[in-house]
Amino acid sequence: MAQWNRSGYFRSSVSRDVNPDLKAERRTASFSVERLTAVLDGGADNTRTRRAMEAVIHRDPVFSREKQYFQSQNERYEAAVRKAVRLKEKMLQRGWTENRPETKYFYRALGGDVAFNVHRVFKNSILALGTDEQIAKWIPLAEKYHIIGTYAQTELGHGTFLRGLETTATFDTSTQEFTLNTPRISAMKWWPGDLGRSATHAVVFAQLYVKGECYGLHPFIVQIRSLRDHLPAPGVTVGDIGPKMNFEHIDNGYLMLQSVTIPRENMLGRFSQVLPDGTYVKRGSDKINYLTMIVTRVEMLWVEVIPALQKACTISVRYSVVRRQSKLNPGEAEAKILDYQTQQQKLLPLLATAYALHFMNAYVNKFYSKGYTEIREGNFDSLPELHALTSGLKAIITDYCTAGAEVCLRACGGHGYSALSGLPFLYTKVAASCTYEGDNTVLFLQTARYLVKCLAAVHAGQPTPPSVAYLSLTNSGKCWVRTEADLLKPDIYAEAYRRRASRLLSTAAAKLQALIQSGAEEYVAWNRCTVQLVQAAKAHCQYIIVKNFIDTVEKLTNEAEIQKIMKHLCDLFALHGIFSNTGDFLHDGYISGDQMDLVTASYLDLLAVIRSDAVPLVDAFDFTDENLNSALGSYDGHVYQRLYEWAQKSPTNQQVSRAYESYLKPLFQGALSKL
Amino acid sequence: MAQWNRSGYFRSSVSRDVNPDLKAERRTASFSVERLTAVLDGGADNTRTRRAMEAVIHRDPVFSREKQYFQSQNERYEAAVRKAVRLKEKMLQRGWTENRPETKYFYRALGGDVAFNVHRVFKNSILALGTDEQIAKWIPLAEKYHIIGTYAQTELGHGTFLRGLETTATFDTSTQEFTLNTPRISAMKWWPGDLGRSATHAVVFAQLYVKGECYGLHPFIVQIRSLRDHLPAPGVTVGDIGPKMNFEHIDNGYLMLQSVTIPRENMLGRFSQVLPDGTYVKRGSDKINYLTMIVTRVEMLWVEVIPALQKACTISVRYSVVRRQSKLNPGEAEAKILDYQTQQQKLLPLLATAYALHFMNAYVNKFYSKGYTEIREGNFDSLPELHALTSGLKAIITDYCTAGAEVCLRACGGHGYSALSGLPFLYTKVAASCTYEGDNTVLFLQTARYLVKCLAAVHAGQPTPPSVAYLSLTNSGKCWVRTEADLLKPDIYAEAYRRRASRLLSTAAAKLQALIQSGAEEYVAWNRCTVQLVQAAKAHCQYIIVKNFIDTVEKLTNEAEIQKIMKHLCDLFALHGIFSNTGDFLHDGYISGDQMDLVTASYLDLLAVIRSDAVPLVDAFDFTDENLNSALGSYDGHVYQRLYEWAQKSPTNQQVSRAYESYLKPLFQGALSKL
Repeated sequence: MAQWNRSGYFRSSVSRDVNPDLKAERRTASFSVERLTAVLDGGADNTRTRRAMEAVIHRDPVFSREKQYFQSQNERYEAAVRKAVRLKEKMLQRGWTENRPETKYFYRALGGDVAFNVHRVFKNSILALGTDEQIAKWIPLAEKYHIIGTYAQTELGHGTFLRGLETTATFDTSTQEFTLNTPRISAMKWWPGDLGRSATHAVVFAQLYVKGECYGLHPFIVQIRSLRDHLPAPGVTVGDIGPKMNFEHIDNGYLMLQSVTIPRENMLGRFSQVLPDGTYVKRGSDKINYLTMIVTRVEMLWVEVIPALQKACTISVRYSVVRRQSKLNPGEAEAKILDYQTQQQKLLPLLATAYALHFMNAYVNKFYSKGYTEIREGNFDSLPELHALTSGLKAIITDYCTAGAEVCLRACGGHGYSALSGLPFLYTKVAASCTYEGDNTVLFLQTARYLVKCLAAVHAGQPTPPSVAYLSLTNSGKCWVRTEADLLKPDIYAEAYRRRASRLLSTAAAKLQALIQSGAEEYVAWNRCTVQLVQAAKAHCQYIIVKNFIDTVEKLTNEAEIQKIMKHLCDLFALHGIFSNTGDFLHDGYISGDQMDLVTASYLDLLAVIRSDAVPLVDAFDFTDENLNSALGSYDGHVYQRLYEWAQKSPTNQQVSRAYESYLKPLFQGALSKL
Repeated sequence: MAQWNRSGYFRSSVSRDVNPDLKAERRTASFSVERLTAVLDGGADNTRTRRAMEAVIHRDPVFSREKQYFQSQNERYEAAVRKAVRLKEKMLQRGWTENRPETKYFYRALGGDVAFNVHRVFKNSILALGTDEQIAKWIPLAEKYHIIGTYAQTELGHGTFLRGLETTATFDTSTQEFTLNTPRISAMKWWPGDLGRSATHAVVFAQLYVKGECYGLHPFIVQIRSLRDHLPAPGVTVGDIGPKMNFEHIDNGYLMLQSVTIPRENMLGRFSQVLPDGTYVKRGSDKINYLTMIVTRVEMLWVEVIPALQKACTISVRYSVVRRQSKLNPGEAEAKILDYQTQQQKLLPLLATAYALHFMNAYVNKFYSKGYTEIREGNFDSLPELHALTSGLKAIITDYCTAGAEVCLRACGGHGYSALSGLPFLYTKVAASCTYEGDNTVLFLQTARYLVKCLAAVHAGQPTPPSVAYLSLTNSGKCWVRTEADLLKPDIYAEAYRRRASRLLSTAAAKLQALIQSGAEEYVAWNRCTVQLVQAAKAHCQYIIVKNFIDTVEKLTNEAEIQKIMKHLCDLFALHGIFSNTGDFLHDGYISGDQMDLVTASYLDLLAVIRSDAVPLVDAFDFTDENLNSALGSYDGHVYQRLYEWAQKSPTNQQVSRAYESYLKPLFQGALSKL
């Protein structure tokens, strides 16, 4: 194998020196990266703990992701199970339960590349929907992996529309058992993770029938495989749904039930039960089945979704100061690609978005914790607002992160498409989050339905929850901005976003009402307004995110340097949103064309401001190299050496293909006499 | 394995009956699908020929794509080589060369899942840049696969910026040879397809040095592997770059050259040569190296890019009338998801886009054929316009098709993410086209640079080429639209697009000039305008596509039914573009807010019009099931059965994983005593 000498910059192993271009970026940071990391992490102590926990993971070769990009679906599944089991050992050794804050650092360090994530949903659903006795029986078994569970809700023919699920559970008073059935192919459970090859148990959602009457969807604990030999339980057909766009480490599965019986006690009974005589008792809201989904949606945002965008930003920003291409100035060296305005326009608004969503998530977690406790205690007052808020935010955050990861991938040119960049893995992983745990369009419409109700309450003079209180403000006047500097006032852009959200909702609601008044049936009218209702729900979510970013920055009074750079990011996030949706703001003349030119100018100027701190801003996310697993995004910036060295490890360079001997060699004979 | 009886809709093999929901869609077509297919195909005779050719492919098990989604990178490479060799046999048997129209039907039937696509670029580059003697020597060998070539231009450190390529070729008058070198790691050729494991030869782009002087980038034919044993030639290091996002069947490779010598005759010499005494002779334009790229860009659009969107539309539209979910009317059965306005909003504008791009491509091919012939004959007059047009259109068409394929994937809910849907393959494949053969942002800026020059010519009263003649029209007045019906007049929306393109270019050009006049250096000023210049280039391309769609529809006078539905699609494409970019049209008040409300209403009404013909419109693309290779998109619509049956074939259901015995079994013992 050829080697360059030092002047060719080739080294047989990656050097410890940091690439000088990357080093220079860090020297000029306007703030302390460590302080910002601590702010993001909620306090300095956490940072130290997190790093220690990450080191535990990275030291153990079981958790190595070195081969990740070269493995088959079978190999990745096996590695993911092995990691999950090893992680559990470590946690049991240390006495850490899933709910300990430290545990989330483990998951962060693993980067989601581990089995039994849906086992967590299985546990969460028992904790949320089970009685105290059920929790006492099942949770300890699940905690120790003595059983592996899955959450079997979605069916081949139904995902979004829960009421349409077709699996049945029929109670028989004589045997005190439920009999579960998959009545037709479309009723087969399809997609649940950990189901295809691992799970022994499942929380199965099925239509409850007692004495011929249907009581709707309920959750049941069903054993699906033997604990002795792992063979399917009687009446159970189970398998893997095959290859997907990513998630090859997860055994998403299918499940068919034919006269599978379970005892009466296996219906999760915190909010409804069937008594021995067949009496159906209900304690909760009809919406209670949403609770597990709310839990899962909130959790996925910080475990999977927002970190994916943060990692994609880290990789692409670092690469963009190492990669030099073309000349800005004909007389100078080639320029760092992050010095091109078009590259800044791609990446820096995403960086602002990653911060905006991080702060939004912190708020949602607080809001959710309070609501969850109330609901489990039987107070359902906050359920509608919590459901509407988490639905819309799940949708917009997964949309942002998916679009963002794709932009990051494409912004790295050809090398972005190499699996070794880490970006295809991040993109395809986060893209699926737009669908799992609720299709985003459906979720936006659930938020919209809630907003329409709240608007009606405002018009009727009734009180509204805090997150929608803005709907009662009046929308008179015009934007008074005269200079670029005016646009950097949070009050200004917050009001522009508020106006827009309010106007789009009012327009959609007015159209809805007009259609109904003109004789259209309500469901027809609703359908004909849905494109505009989705727009309104998005505008509402964007307003909330902007507002929360502003509030967060205001509270950073003890961190002057950090407050300053966060204020710039907040401005950038807000102005980029206006720049990208100019029509929404120009439509009613609230902002004029001339003012919009100021927005453009101000936005483009902000790009240059953020540019100089871009690397420290991604460094502050504090991902380890192992976590990023990217030849382009490592802390030291030795991009080309890593690409070359990692490529050597590919099985395509280590296995001899039959293609040459079988197909090509005979053909090449034809050229031997001529060349 | 459990089986349902007939009432459960399960069949052990997929039935030949068409799903009744899909069947119903076809019964009400407003036009003849066969006629539309013929129109798209340029004439009825072609359709019959194409189908016959496709049948040749589909009958041969070598070309089967049944295992495609289950294979490793090694297996896919081997299968792709086998297919390419078999295809060549068939072509030689029939005496068909690459340039025969029939050949493109073979490639269409193979769906790009075949090796030696870059071998075609190798050939095209010799045909475009080689002398008659070079063509006579190399092309017959390449035609018969007696040699396999690749096109080695991009380097690890340089893609876009051709002048920055670092590989050198130094001429020695004493030996009459060029010596090629890779001076450092960033100069390694990286990405060329067919290079990693197959190619025997390469067209290598290198900086030409003669007697110490650099003459810039030139193409050289270099043998890189032995024709006897396929080992790397002396001084050559070559290998595979490893896994990518898709393209696993292609052996994208790296190539390092250390003092590799080739004879003087191996420099491609149609436009420049080095004489035996070292004299450098140039016959062409500096831009001549772009010619192969123009050829490749034009070809990729119809071979890979536009069909990807057409296939994604076919799959997602068919699935959207088979999938029923939720109820539109509480009293009725669940609705087809294509009856939801939000689903129409996702898919139907894409359908219109697929047609718009098909027609645009037909125009570009004609324009290109004429220009190519002139250029090869030494008349370079049309090169700038051809380059600008193909650059911008390559960028916008790949952008459209990538965004579109992603929307189609997401619009199929969870099942879209299954590899078995075919959509992840289509999406990841077309996404790469945004970067290969020229990064889209760079290409838009090349078009923008040309437009800025043309605008200056207009201001100077000089003539301009036809594609930019519109810049000389005046932009006075306002849009006079008063009703929704007014918006369906092509003159109206064409003028709106023209105004917008003209305004965005003028704004960017004025800013550029103002910056230069205020003392900024030209390159600084240019960089500070690039975000807006890209916007202007996009608006220019969109105007051209709308205009071409209008012209195409006008010419369909002999096909009344087809003209009618194409007119609807043209309206939809145009109004969707306005609806999606309202700010561009509202900014200067050309369209008012009230008029924009009419656009929204008119656009939403058109969705319902196209809805009723959506299935016939995708049927007219006339893709075979084998070509789509999708469990969701087959002609018969048996979605759920296919998903289930295909999943059984996955290696995850056929190989036993060690994960259970090694990691899980010991844990499950802990539950045996308790359950």
